[in-house]
Amino acid sequence: MDKHPRQFEKELDELKKKLIRMAALAETMIDKTISELVQRDEHLAAQVPDYEDEVNALQIEIDEMVLTLLATQQPVAKDLRFIVAASKINSELERIGDLAINITQQVHVLAQQPPLKPLIDIPRMADLARQMVRQSIEAFIAEDALQAQSVILADDEVDGLKKQVLRELLTYMMADPRTIERAIALILVSRHLERIADHATNIAQDVIYMIEGRDVRHPRSRAGPKPESPA
Amino acid sequence: MDKHPRQFEKELDELKKKLIRMAALAETMIDKTISELVQRDEHLAAQVPDYEDEVNALQIEIDEMVLTLLATQQPVAKDLRFIVAASKINSELERIGDLAINITQQVHVLAQQPPLKPLIDIPRMADLARQMVRQSIEAFIAEDALQAQSVILADDEVDGLKKQVLRELLTYMMADPRTIERAIALILVSRHLERIADHATNIAQDVIYMIEGRDVRHPRSRAGPKPESPA
Repeated sequence: MDKHPRQFEKELDELKKKLIRMAALAETMIDKTISELVQRDEHLAAQVPDYEDEVNALQIEIDEMVLTLLATQQPVAKDLRFIVAASKINSELERIGDLAINITQQVHVLAQQPPLKPLIDIPRMADLARQMVRQSIEAFIAEDALQAQSVILADDEVDGLKKQVLRELLTYMMADPRTIERAIALILVSRHLERIADHATNIAQDVIYMIEGRDVRHPRSRAGPKPESPA
Repeated sequence: MDKHPRQFEKELDELKKKLIRMAALAETMIDKTISELVQRDEHLAAQVPDYEDEVNALQIEIDEMVLTLLATQQPVAKDLRFIVAASKINSELERIGDLAINITQQVHVLAQQPPLKPLIDIPRMADLARQMVRQSIEAFIAEDALQAQSVILADDEVDGLKKQVLRELLTYMMADPRTIERAIALILVSRHLERIADHATNIAQDVIYMIEGRDVRHPRSRAGPKPESPA
């Protein structure tokens, strides 16, 4: 089907490289902004908006590449599924960049006030979310359904930490109303991190769908099969 | 380019109908869950999970249709942009359904406790978000860039209400720690509504990109032009 097979391969490689670059930028954004939160050094996240500009520029480039590849190469079968997956993953990565910006906004609020408590669970959530982003993209590039499945499983741990963060901060707020504003900012940070993990999970589900043609997005709905749990 | 023009038209119509149905379901989910919150009648949102099942089933059907249309019809130009936009809008609508479920979870938490205050801003946010969802899909079907632009502008009002909700609930929490759990549930409801409005905004941006080939997603980034504000 390919009109210019070698050119097509080259463009698919280019597409992969751009997605890898976007994922790396998203990871860096999460890392810098949480480092600023933990270390209370406002210089750490200073470049986060610049990274977001690059993520946004890449999103536009990838959308154009997808349209051009579909129109000029008219791919079918595996290549078509790959390009459609790339288009979806592109949107997910851009949202992850947005969420890193949302976190940075709360971090700036928190920087104006004394620390509420030593942070343990939130940096743990951030590490997990970052790893999930990286692994979901690695699974996409390597077409590795097993690695994608492990991203989906990691999401439960992030959800557990989110609940723990809420419970702990509730006790702070109840005990001392002066902690309320900071506690809410931290709760919002944890929610943004949870959403980043959700986007990584979406990427992993797109990867499995691309590889197996099997829909794992709605395991509890009437529409899709339940994914098997590991032994 | 179309191999079977009449069949292709029919399938595009089918795709539109499915997206309209998804949007209508998402609107109903928001309406029912917020009605339950305001009227404190737990039967109102009882069907929301059933609606979500239908939304999820539609998402899978639409993804399959998109792949089939791309593979068998190899559309170009306007048709290609339409199908790629439909694929993106499909994801946005599914997320809106998810968020309605998240709201329902908080509504159930709130139903166990006495009302904190009469709710004004949250139902207003829900109305705006619902209208944005409807108008964004109408703009897609009618290929109406002006209507899409008005959805994007409405998002500012939702953001303003979100901030107002937070400010007001902070004062409740500071005054009386017994209100903290309920206030947090309401803050999370308002954040979920804000995200629904964000997804409607994404749809509107996809519509403008489909029609004009102009990227309005990142007005403040170096990558894209700034959308003009209305006179």
